Amino acid sequence: MNAKKKNILLLGGFGFIGLNLLEELFSAQNYSMLVFNSGAAPMAWATKAVRRIYRGDFCREHDLEEVFRENKIDIVVHLVSTTIPTGSNGSEMVYDIESNLVPTVKLLCLMRKFGVPKIVFASSGGTVYGLPQKGLQACNFAETWSTNPICSHGAVKLAVEKYIQLSGYLYGLEYLILRISNPYGEYHSSSVQGLINVALKNILAGRPVVVWGDGEVVRDYIYVKDCVKAITDLIDKEFSSAIFNVGSGSGHSVNEILALIKDVVGEFRVERVHSRKFDVPRAVLDVSKLKATVDFNPTTIKNGIRKTYRWLLRIQSYGR
Amino acid sequence: MNAKKKNILLLGGFGFIGLNLLEELFSAQNYSMLVFNSGAAPMAWATKAVRRIYRGDFCREHDLEEVFRENKIDIVVHLVSTTIPTGSNGSEMVYDIESNLVPTVKLLCLMRKFGVPKIVFASSGGTVYGLPQKGLQACNFAETWSTNPICSHGAVKLAVEKYIQLSGYLYGLEYLILRISNPYGEYHSSSVQGLINVALKNILAGRPVVVWGDGEVVRDYIYVKDCVKAITDLIDKEFSSAIFNVGSGSGHSVNEILALIKDVVGEFRVERVHSRKFDVPRAVLDVSKLKATVDFNPTTIKNGIRKTYRWLLRIQSYGR
Repeated sequence: MNAKKKNILLLGGFGFIGLNLLEELFSAQNYSMLVFNSGAAPMAWATKAVRRIYRGDFCREHDLEEVFRENKIDIVVHLVSTTIPTGSNGSEMVYDIESNLVPTVKLLCLMRKFGVPKIVFASSGGTVYGLPQKGLQACNFAETWSTNPICSHGAVKLAVEKYIQLSGYLYGLEYLILRISNPYGEYHSSSVQGLINVALKNILAGRPVVVWGDGEVVRDYIYVKDCVKAITDLIDKEFSSAIFNVGSGSGHSVNEILALIKDVVGEFRVERVHSRKFDVPRAVLDVSKLKATVDFNPTTIKNGIRKTYRWLLRIQSYGR
Repeated sequence: MNAKKKNILLLGGFGFIGLNLLEELFSAQNYSMLVFNSGAAPMAWATKAVRRIYRGDFCREHDLEEVFRENKIDIVVHLVSTTIPTGSNGSEMVYDIESNLVPTVKLLCLMRKFGVPKIVFASSGGTVYGLPQKGLQACNFAETWSTNPICSHGAVKLAVEKYIQLSGYLYGLEYLILRISNPYGEYHSSSVQGLINVALKNILAGRPVVVWGDGEVVRDYIYVKDCVKAITDLIDKEFSSAIFNVGSGSGHSVNEILALIKDVVGEFRVERVHSRKFDVPRAVLDVSKLKATVDFNPTTIKNGIRKTYRWLLRIQSYGR
């Protein structure tokens, strides 16, 4: 047994990506995990997997400071996001800044104060790039591309990235900025965000699947287990101060996804509604940098959908 | 006489750039000016030049809303900046966000609410780009370059740019984002920011000129009258939804500037102190886009210094 396990603090560790990452890190056994979360662990194993749980509000600096005062943290994994792309425009922009950007800048100050050397930040591969430049609409977004978000969620994620890089330059903070595409799979709980999970859940409940616009919007869907394996591998490799796209590298339209779901679960009802201005027509990530750095072989979309469906059936039967 | 003068609202209109712009716009006679400012006009002509003055706090949405409710504004010129590059790191980052970014996002919401079609924003050519990529250190920064600020001032200016562009995409707001280099000249009043003005003022007061580091840091200094002429020409041309570098396009080291000042005013004392981490070694703007759009022939640095010095002598003699 290694006595010098690194202490990883997962902010938002009981969220969708957090729970999957916790499971992955727990099986890796190289780390001692602490979780800071607004709510309690949704399942018993998660409580057992972590050394200590702090329930607190990310917007309250005092709640966070307590964790750093009581523990020597080696890596902060920042997975907190108080908003989602669908609900982050108009007057909500200010809320977005005050509940995501401001607390993160305060977090960076606390990390400096307590000498925490490294941060891993879950950014948004689907929204920080925005509309591609002319002539590049059919290309996959590379990390070096210009970033012009067309929704508030993306603007905030990008601002957070800039402040993290600024702390890297000014104070030597090491960072991993992960621009994650659209994750789906186990432990997903949102009822509005995440096409694959939401569609499967609706189908199981006998509700129609809602599609925005003509369904030709193309996205990069990543099976969450692939996502957290990539994160864990990057942490293991001690790779730092870099930006990585974390996606499948493949694009699928909503209609293609629905057809694949039909192959897995059979017929279901679809309800089509007007399209949204803040939907980029095509958002697929170039993941060659990730593939060149860690061993990364993403699950096929059909297998991912199958696994997600099986998980949903399993938790549904537990619920009965 | 043209009865359909456009209403321009200058936010921070009694600041350094504001006063010069006011003078330029006043002589152009095509516009009716309103000023929103925290303090009163520092000189009588400025009061006469504007149709209406609102004294208010940029951070108080209610103060701003009053202006839009009482006037049909065609163009907002946003010159407010509560922080300067020298004082915008560490714990001041949060203040920077809360006093610059948040009120600007609220301003954008107000503009949408009251149907104001256009914004001109004074961004920072010296700080939004940050450190250039490897191999480009000796090149002038073009508008298409990547933006990686290394000080909080630049991070906030960049975030504001992104929110303005976002409003352009979502709500059709027209914008002119002006990345202004280091302006100097008439109506400058800061006693800490702005090498040329601060040095001349110190020399006139018999104080030494303070130089950070070895004085080899290269900057793009723009004579403020050139800057406001460019802004006015861009507004006149109704050019919109674009980013422009506004600088001289020439680089000068601090030591070169001091030698030029010596040519103009004679000997003076210099005091050298340690360098600052947030100083980019070289920050010179590529102004070819500006030159291709408006008639732009910047004043030589020596002439600019001479004019600034004469102005300082003039206001000093008024003061006696």
